[in-house]
Amino acid sequence: MASVKLIEYAQASTQVRAVYDDIMATRKTDSINNFWKALASHPPTLRRTWESVKDVMTPGALDPLTKELVYLAVSASNGCHYCIASHTASARKHGMSDEMLGELMAVVGMANETNRLANGYQVEIDEVFRTPAS
Amino acid sequence: MASVKLIEYAQASTQVRAVYDDIMATRKTDSINNFWKALASHPPTLRRTWESVKDVMTPGALDPLTKELVYLAVSASNGCHYCIASHTASARKHGMSDEMLGELMAVVGMANETNRLANGYQVEIDEVFRTPAS
Amino acid sequence: MASVKLIEYAQASTQVRAVYDDIMATRKTDSINNFWKALASHPPTLRRTWESVKDVMTPGALDPLTKELVYLAVSASNGCHYCIASHTASARKHGMSDEMLGELMAVVGMANETNRLANGYQVEIDEVFRTPAS
Amino acid sequence: MASVKLIEYAQASTQVRAVYDDIMATRKTDSINNFWKALASHPPTLRRTWESVKDVMTPGALDPLTKELVYLAVSASNGCHYCIASHTASARKHGMSDEMLGELMAVVGMANETNRLANGYQVEIDEVFRTPAS
Amino acid sequence: MASVKLIEYAQASTQVRAVYDDIMATRKTDSINNFWKALASHPPTLRRTWESVKDVMTPGALDPLTKELVYLAVSASNGCHYCIASHTASARKHGMSDEMLGELMAVVGMANETNRLANGYQVEIDEVFRTPAS
Amino acid sequence: MASVKLIEYAQASTQVRAVYDDIMATRKTDSINNFWKALASHPPTLRRTWESVKDVMTPGALDPLTKELVYLAVSASNGCHYCIASHTASARKHGMSDEMLGELMAVVGMANETNRLANGYQVEIDEVFRTPAS
Repeated sequence: MASVKLIEYAQASTQVRAVYDDIMATRKTDSINNFWKALASHPPTLRRTWESVKDVMTPGALDPLTKELVYLAVSASNGCHYCIASHTASARKHGMSDEMLGELMAVVGMANETNRLANGYQVEIDEVFRTPAS
Repeated sequence: MASVKLIEYAQASTQVRAVYDDIMATRKTDSINNFWKALASHPPTLRRTWESVKDVMTPGALDPLTKELVYLAVSASNGCHYCIASHTASARKHGMSDEMLGELMAVVGMANETNRLANGYQVEIDEVFRTPAS
Repeated sequence: MASVKLIEYAQASTQVRAVYDDIMATRKTDSINNFWKALASHPPTLRRTWESVKDVMTPGALDPLTKELVYLAVSASNGCHYCIASHTASARKHGMSDEMLGELMAVVGMANETNRLANGYQVEIDEVFRTPAS
Repeated sequence: MASVKLIEYAQASTQVRAVYDDIMATRKTDSINNFWKALASHPPTLRRTWESVKDVMTPGALDPLTKELVYLAVSASNGCHYCIASHTASARKHGMSDEMLGELMAVVGMANETNRLANGYQVEIDEVFRTPAS
Repeated sequence: MASVKLIEYAQASTQVRAVYDDIMATRKTDSINNFWKALASHPPTLRRTWESVKDVMTPGALDPLTKELVYLAVSASNGCHYCIASHTASARKHGMSDEMLGELMAVVGMANETNRLANGYQVEIDEVFRTPAS
Repeated sequence: MASVKLIEYAQASTQVRAVYDDIMATRKTDSINNFWKALASHPPTLRRTWESVKDVMTPGALDPLTKELVYLAVSASNGCHYCIASHTASARKHGMSDEMLGELMAVVGMANETNRLANGYQVEIDEVFRTPAS
């Protein structure tokens, strides 16, 4: 049960509908996920979050699948069940196979393991990693 | 100051040297990072961790740069300074530009933001994301 | 299913009942949450945790609503579903509106985003933030 | 050493300068922090992050000090040293006393403790916390 | 609903069955948990993870119960519900009583609290903790 | 540079000195760590935190070394550098060898890895782990 009433399209204000319309047009779908329906309880957060996500996930120097894989990796690392579920679906739409998911999870698991080994042993950063950025 | 004495090649046991040799051969380098020198205080952890990292980071369904980007994304999300420094260097060696780093960090930041919005609002997973895996 | 048998008032020891009585008196309620019933499996933890929470949440330099908002913010950031549910309820009792929840979640999301950008880019702390505490 | 070259005002593009000017005007200061100078290596992230922070931190249903306290609470909980340093400074500018900082940290500490107790004992959410949002 | 089809013994490849057989023999059980059935969607991750877990959890300088307590402590601290459930069961099999669980959770809670106090107050590491490792 | 002025014994109030005296007596030492000197900026937090730590770390169903190992494991998992440094020192005083530290870190690393695999694959909790607590 969400903390707020989910806002359905039929009950939405003009301002919220405009965001919903843009989400559906951009994603070529005719439904709105619970995530956006919850954010719609606070329209400025709905609008800002959607504009940011749209902006950030646009193809650029990284392709859309890579971006989805990174999004899923971070969500899995943080243990956000909603985001894992929704971004697993997104990544599959962008072409993620079971093999790719397996390798992705292996990297996420290994990074989480070595992050703790490096911290736990208080390892100092090597001089070679401190060279000035060009 | 690391929690343990860093093991230099000259003082290393045959068992540890074998791992160091494999790291240097695999990575085409002639030096060993502090991370491995700290793990060498417990040779089974050194060997197992290296074998796992080598295995996981081998090119497969995901290419090496994508794997490095994911490793860096998770390390940045977890705030492991050592791993951020070392995997930023690795990712650059594999071709990461400032533009790619910028987009990567933008996705990491956005995922961390929406992970908290989804959890904070207690959003329930949409039925459509629960469909059985094929 | 909790890891331990929940201790109901009727089955509780005198020691546990004393804590339950204080919880109900302090919070002006006649029921005990599952959280406390689980902690009651280890009476010293029940007593210490309740005394600490009562102490920390008492009005002081920060008012009770601000304290509840901070508690909810941290719980949302950590993804603790139980604590998000219970402290959303508490914060609402202390007057949190949907508007306030929206702004709170926006700050939580933004802090989580910029925390990763600062770490991910390895940004050094500005000299001006290092000035000695007065 | 940051992962990227920090962009100083003198070397900044027109696009970056426009953001820097807005930061300095909004915050009534004549200097730019390292955080923004690092983000400037990827101008779209600089612009989007600044616009979002400005938007989110504007006084609304929550006052500016409360927002700074929440920002600091989340940063302390996540262990982001840069953000702890910068938002401790910000919160002090908005009036945070040592007494308020003490109470804030006490709530942050307690939330982190009880988050783990609730998860660790696998406590189920009470029915009363599941009532539909009005 | 897992992200991948769970692999049952009857449908498993020879390679996966070999791992399943080793799990059942090592753990003296005749069933396989969902965790391993999900990993089996990517056989190299199944094999590597099982070999690592078997290796790490073998009695050594630390006894098996201590290792299970640490595993549970970390899982509770991270809020991984699956791992909390499975390692609570494992720890109980190795002799963990309610009293021990209570003390374990108390330490986990306290560490999570003081971790945030130390970070939140930006406490510098005492010289005495920096003495070189022997 | 800590967020607050560290309180030295000579400048401390009677209330703070009483806590400092108890810390030194309990720990059989004649110095106070920076952690406590920072907490002393808010005497109620100093007193409550010390009383809680003393209480929790007292030998009980778990012995002092096991408690220190768990404290270090959680601190390493959370990446709290101050707490890793101080509890590595504490654990060594209680008898932790490099071998034990190696096994401890291996368990911490493995738990962090499998926590992400379980979450990332959205693995459902097995029925057998849901049996009612006795």
